Amino acid sequence: MEVVVLAAGQGKRMRSVLPKVLQPIAGKPMLAHVLDAARTLDARRICVVYGHGGEAVREHLDAPDLAWARQQPQLGTGHAVQQALPHLSDGDMALVLYGDVPLIGVPTLRRLAAAAGGERLALLTVRMDDPTGYGRILRDGAGRITRIVEEKDASDEERKVQEVNTGILVAPVARLRGWLGRIGNDNAQGEYYLTDIIGLAVADGVEVVSEQPDAFAETLGVNNKMQLAELERLHQGNIARRLMEEGATLIDPARIDVRGSLSIGRDVEIDANCVFEGTVELGDKVRIGPNCVIRNARIGAGSRIEAFSHVDSTTMGQACVIGPYARTRPGTVLGSDVHLGNFVEIKNSVIADHSKANHLAYVGDADVGSKVNIGAGTITCNYDGANKHRTIIEDEVFIGSDTQLVAPVRVGRGATLGAGTTLTKDAPPEQLTVTRVRQLSLANWKRPVKQPR
Amino acid sequence: MEVVVLAAGQGKRMRSVLPKVLQPIAGKPMLAHVLDAARTLDARRICVVYGHGGEAVREHLDAPDLAWARQQPQLGTGHAVQQALPHLSDGDMALVLYGDVPLIGVPTLRRLAAAAGGERLALLTVRMDDPTGYGRILRDGAGRITRIVEEKDASDEERKVQEVNTGILVAPVARLRGWLGRIGNDNAQGEYYLTDIIGLAVADGVEVVSEQPDAFAETLGVNNKMQLAELERLHQGNIARRLMEEGATLIDPARIDVRGSLSIGRDVEIDANCVFEGTVELGDKVRIGPNCVIRNARIGAGSRIEAFSHVDSTTMGQACVIGPYARTRPGTVLGSDVHLGNFVEIKNSVIADHSKANHLAYVGDADVGSKVNIGAGTITCNYDGANKHRTIIEDEVFIGSDTQLVAPVRVGRGATLGAGTTLTKDAPPEQLTVTRVRQLSLANWKRPVKQPR
Amino acid sequence: MEVVVLAAGQGKRMRSVLPKVLQPIAGKPMLAHVLDAARTLDARRICVVYGHGGEAVREHLDAPDLAWARQQPQLGTGHAVQQALPHLSDGDMALVLYGDVPLIGVPTLRRLAAAAGGERLALLTVRMDDPTGYGRILRDGAGRITRIVEEKDASDEERKVQEVNTGILVAPVARLRGWLGRIGNDNAQGEYYLTDIIGLAVADGVEVVSEQPDAFAETLGVNNKMQLAELERLHQGNIARRLMEEGATLIDPARIDVRGSLSIGRDVEIDANCVFEGTVELGDKVRIGPNCVIRNARIGAGSRIEAFSHVDSTTMGQACVIGPYARTRPGTVLGSDVHLGNFVEIKNSVIADHSKANHLAYVGDADVGSKVNIGAGTITCNYDGANKHRTIIEDEVFIGSDTQLVAPVRVGRGATLGAGTTLTKDAPPEQLTVTRVRQLSLANWKRPVKQPR
Repeated sequence: MEVVVLAAGQGKRMRSVLPKVLQPIAGKPMLAHVLDAARTLDARRICVVYGHGGEAVREHLDAPDLAWARQQPQLGTGHAVQQALPHLSDGDMALVLYGDVPLIGVPTLRRLAAAAGGERLALLTVRMDDPTGYGRILRDGAGRITRIVEEKDASDEERKVQEVNTGILVAPVARLRGWLGRIGNDNAQGEYYLTDIIGLAVADGVEVVSEQPDAFAETLGVNNKMQLAELERLHQGNIARRLMEEGATLIDPARIDVRGSLSIGRDVEIDANCVFEGTVELGDKVRIGPNCVIRNARIGAGSRIEAFSHVDSTTMGQACVIGPYARTRPGTVLGSDVHLGNFVEIKNSVIADHSKANHLAYVGDADVGSKVNIGAGTITCNYDGANKHRTIIEDEVFIGSDTQLVAPVRVGRGATLGAGTTLTKDAPPEQLTVTRVRQLSLANWKRPVKQPR
Repeated sequence: MEVVVLAAGQGKRMRSVLPKVLQPIAGKPMLAHVLDAARTLDARRICVVYGHGGEAVREHLDAPDLAWARQQPQLGTGHAVQQALPHLSDGDMALVLYGDVPLIGVPTLRRLAAAAGGERLALLTVRMDDPTGYGRILRDGAGRITRIVEEKDASDEERKVQEVNTGILVAPVARLRGWLGRIGNDNAQGEYYLTDIIGLAVADGVEVVSEQPDAFAETLGVNNKMQLAELERLHQGNIARRLMEEGATLIDPARIDVRGSLSIGRDVEIDANCVFEGTVELGDKVRIGPNCVIRNARIGAGSRIEAFSHVDSTTMGQACVIGPYARTRPGTVLGSDVHLGNFVEIKNSVIADHSKANHLAYVGDADVGSKVNIGAGTITCNYDGANKHRTIIEDEVFIGSDTQLVAPVRVGRGATLGAGTTLTKDAPPEQLTVTRVRQLSLANWKRPVKQPR
Repeated sequence: MEVVVLAAGQGKRMRSVLPKVLQPIAGKPMLAHVLDAARTLDARRICVVYGHGGEAVREHLDAPDLAWARQQPQLGTGHAVQQALPHLSDGDMALVLYGDVPLIGVPTLRRLAAAAGGERLALLTVRMDDPTGYGRILRDGAGRITRIVEEKDASDEERKVQEVNTGILVAPVARLRGWLGRIGNDNAQGEYYLTDIIGLAVADGVEVVSEQPDAFAETLGVNNKMQLAELERLHQGNIARRLMEEGATLIDPARIDVRGSLSIGRDVEIDANCVFEGTVELGDKVRIGPNCVIRNARIGAGSRIEAFSHVDSTTMGQACVIGPYARTRPGTVLGSDVHLGNFVEIKNSVIADHSKANHLAYVGDADVGSKVNIGAGTITCNYDGANKHRTIIEDEVFIGSDTQLVAPVRVGRGATLGAGTTLTKDAPPEQLTVTRVRQLSLANWKRPVKQPR
C-alpha cells in the first residue's frame, strides 16, 4: 500500500497565515494526524502533495519516510494526485487521504484497503440525513456503484440519494495512472476532479466497492475555524470516552483537553477543566483536581495534584501531594510522599522522599534530600545574573521561613536555618545557622501621616 | 415502609477496584445517594444487600439505621431481595431500590408508595422512545398490568411497547416473601429475577399498579464510567437549575460543580467553572469569580471571591474581598471587610474587621486584630520543626513587607514593623520595631561574567 | 425613527432585588443591550418606559439621549407604550422594543423598519415548532395579516399556526397614537394589550406586514434566571462564532466568556475557559493559555499569556511572556519582551523592554528600566501605611532575591542588589549594594522537640 495525502489547499477561509493543513487539532497539525494514520497502516510510501505555503508544511513536518510532490498551479484533486504518481509503483495499491480530514481512523482505512483487495477501486462513503452539497453515490439495480454525481449536475431523483462520497479511496496504482491521464477539466472551475475516475473505472470493468467509516466524524473536513473547533471537540470527546473505557473517572468529559498521549493506571480521577499536553502517565489512584495543566509528566501511584497546579516535564513518585497552585517546571524530579503547597515553584531540582515545601517558595537548580522542610518564602538564589549554580540541601534539613540560599551553597545534613537567613556560605550539619541582628524598637517613632496629594 | 437496597453488583465494567455502588456522584457514593433518599422517606428499616467487595461498602457507609444482608453467591435480583427478607416485617410495605440508580427522587418514591397503598404492588415504569433491551410492561385491554416481558422473549408486537420496567417497586412484605419463594431460575443465566413476581402477583389477584418518575434520569443505572459521567452531569444540571430557581445568577449552568450542599442568599452571582464541596453558605449578594474552589465555607453578605481563589473550611464576614489567587485553609475566620489579595495563604487564623493582607503572604496559627495591614511577603513562622506556635497581632498594627514573625510572638497594638524584620521577640505597642543593618555599597565590585559550560 | 423600549416589568420570577431589565447578559444590563441596538439605528429619540424599581433603572442607565416615561400603575403593554406617546412626534415611525429581549439584532430591526416604510405597520414574527402559549399570526387567503389571536382565544385550527408574534413592531406614530386611544382592557387581566392595535390597523386599512429575525434567539425574552443563563450562553456562542469567523482559534467555543469588546489580530489562539472583560485588544499571534482572565487590556503582537493569568487594565508590548499565575493590575505598562513569571503581581508600574520578574514578586508604583532582572521574592514597599511612594529601577539593574525596596528609592543604572537586601536609600549605579550580617552557626544548638499537647 502507498498513501497519497493531498495537502495543497490554501485554506483562505481559515483567515490565517498558517497553511490550512498545519492548523492544529489537539495541539498537532491536522496533516500530522493524517500522517500518523498512514504510518500506522505501514504504508510502503507516503507522498504528500503540497502547494500553497507548502514550504512551511514541508519544513514543519518533513521526515525520512515522506515523499513530497509539489502541485503548482493547483488544478483540482485529480491533478493533485497526478503530481504524486512519479512516487508510486504500479504494482501497489494507492490510498488517497486529505490533510484537512484529520480524524480518519485506522480501522476504517484497513477495512477500505481490504475491500479494495489488490484490484478493485474502494470508495469510502457515508450516509447523511441531509446530503445537500455533496457528491451522491449512484448505484445500479444490483447495488453496484456506477458513478458519483455532483449536487449541481444531479436530477431531483439523484439528489434524494443520501450516500455521499468522502473522497477517500483506494485504487491500483497502475489503473489510477491510466485514469488520471484520461480525466478532463471541462467544468465550471476548469479543474481535474479525482471523482471522475469512478466513471472510468466502471467503464473499464473495474469493480467499484464501498466501505463506511466507524464514525461520521472521521470524514469531516476543515475549511474554517468553526469546523476546526468542532473537530477539536469531537476529537477530545473521543479521547475522553477512551479514558473512561479504560476506567478513568472524569467529572466532566466535555471539560478535558488532551493534546498528546495520556496513559492511566486504575482508578484515576480527573476533575473538571484539566489540560494534558505531551506524554503524561498517571499511576493508579492518581487524582487530579480541577483546573490543572499537566505536561510531559509521570505521576506516581496515589499522588494527588490539587486545583490550579501546573506540572511540566516532571517525574513524581508515589503518594505526593501537590498544590493547590503548585508549579513544577522542567527537570523536576520528586521522590515519594513529597508535598508541595501553594505558590511554590520547583525548577530543575530533585527532591527526595518525605520532603516538603508547603508555601510560597522557589526551589531552582537544587538537590534536596529526604525529610527536608523548606519554610515559607524560601528562595534558592540560583542565578547571579550570568551563571546558574546549584544548591545542595542534605537530608533532614529544616529551612526557616524567608531564607535565601545563595548558590552555590550546601546545607549539611540535619542543619537548621533560622528564619530570614541569607545563606552565602555552607551551613554545617546539625547546627543552627542564622544571619541575624538585634531587634530594635524606637519608642519615639511616629507613623507617617497621609499627605495631601 | 421498609426499604431494600440492592447493592451487591460487582461492576466489572467500571474497571475499578472500588465496588460499583461506592463510585461517586457529586463526590458521594451512589449508594449514599440512594440511602439518603430512603432516609428522607422515614423508612422504618433500611436493608442493604451487599455482595462483591461488600465489606468495603459496609465499612464505608455503615450507620446505626442500616441492616446489612450478604448475598453470596449472587443469583439474581430476586435472590438478592430474598436475602433481605429476614430483616423485613410482614405487616409492612417494602420498597426495592438499587445502589447503582442514584438519582431516584423522593417525590417519585412517595407517589409510588401511595400508589401501592398498603396492599398493591406498585411498579415504577418509564416510557422510552427506544425501549430496545428493556423489559416491556404488558397490559390487558383495561390497561391493567399483566406481566413484564424481557426483550429476548418478546414478540414483535410486544417489542413495540414503549413502557418499560425500571425495577423499582413497592410491595407488601408478606406477599413478597411468598412470591420470592415461588420464583424459579429456569432461564439462560440461571438467575432468580425479581421481575417474575409481577406475574405471580397478577395470578394471586393482587393489583399491580404503576407510577412514573418526575424525570427519566431518576431511573438511570450506572454500569460504566461513561454512564457515571453522564449521571454526574445530569445531577449537576439539576443542582444548577435549583440554584437558578432560587435566584442565583449562574454564568454557565453547564460549568458549575456542587458536591454537597450549597445554600444561597439573594442575588448571588457565580461565574464560570466553580466547584463547591461540603457545606457552603453564600450570603446575599455574594459574588464568586471564575475558577474558584469553595469547600465547607460560610461567606457573609456582600463578600466577593475573585478568580482562582481556594476557600476551605472558612468563615467569612460581610463585604470581604478575597483573591484573586487567595487561599484560606481550615480554621480561617475572617471578620467583615477583610481583604486578602493574590498569593496569600491563611490557615487556622482569625483576622478581624477591616484588616488586609494583599500580597504574597502566609498567615498561619495567628490572631490578627482589626485594621491591621500585613505587608507583602509577610510570613508567620508558626512551625519550629516540631511544634506549632501562635502569633498575636493586635489592632491597627502595620507589618512591613517581607517580615517574619517567629512564633510564639506578639505585636502590640498600633505597632509598626519595618520591612524585612525578623521578629523573634514581642514588639511593643505603637513603636517601630526593626532588625536592620547598615546599607553598604561596594564601589569596586564586578558583576559575574558568563562562564563557558 | 423613534424607539420605545418597554422596561417596566417587575420580574418577580428573577427572585432578585435588581429590576429585571438591569439583570446582566455578558456583564451588561439587558436594557443596555437594547439601548445599544436602538442607538446603532440612529434613532431620533429613545424613550424608555420604566416602572417597578424604575428609579434604579434610570439612575443606572440614564444618558442625555434618553427620554424616560414612568408607567404607574402598570396596565399592560399597550398602556406602557401610551406613556411614551408624549415623547414621540407624529411624523415619525416608532419602533417598540423590550428591555428584557436583549439579543435583538440591528440588521433585523433595519429590515423591519424598511418593511414598514413610512406608513405600514411592520411586525416581527417567528415560526416555532411548538408555538404553544404564543399569540398566533392569522392571515387571509392572500397571506395578509388579519389579526393576532392569543392561545386561550384560539380555535383548534388557529392553534396549528406556527407563526407567532414577538411583540416587536414598527408603526407610524400618529396612527399608533390613535389606535392606543381605542384599545380596551376587557380581558381577564384587565390590561391594555399592544397586540390589539393590529386589528385596528387592519380595520383602518393600514397594511400590516411582517419580517423575520436573522436568528430566533433575537426574540427570546427573559423571565427567570434559567432563561437569563440560556441567553447568556446563546450570546456568548454568537461572540465565539464571530471571533472564529475573524480567524481566532478557539479551543472550545463553549468555554469562552466575553463581556465587552474583544478585538483580535491574525492568528490569535485562545485556550479553554478564558474570560475577557471590558475592552481587550489582542495583537497578531497572541496566545492566551487556559483559565485566564483578561480585562481592559492591549496585548502586543506575539505575546503569550500563560495559564491562570489575571491581566487587568494593562498595556503590553510585543513578544511578552506572562504567567502562568501572573497578575497585572491597573496601571501596568509593559514594554516588549517583558517576562513575568509565576506568582508575580505588578501594579501601577512601567516595565521597559527585555526586563524580567520571573518568580514570586510584588512590583507596585515602580518605574523599571530595560534589561532589569527582578529576583524571586522582590517586593517594592510602596506603602508606608499612609502614603504610596514610587520606586525607580534604572536600566540593567540586577535585583537579588528577597529584596525589599523601601520607596521612595532609586536603584541606579547597572546596580546590583544582593539577596535579602532591605534597600532604604538609593543604590548607586554599577555597584553592589547589600544589607548583610555575618553568617553564624551555633554548634551546641538543639532542635526543638515535639511537646505533648
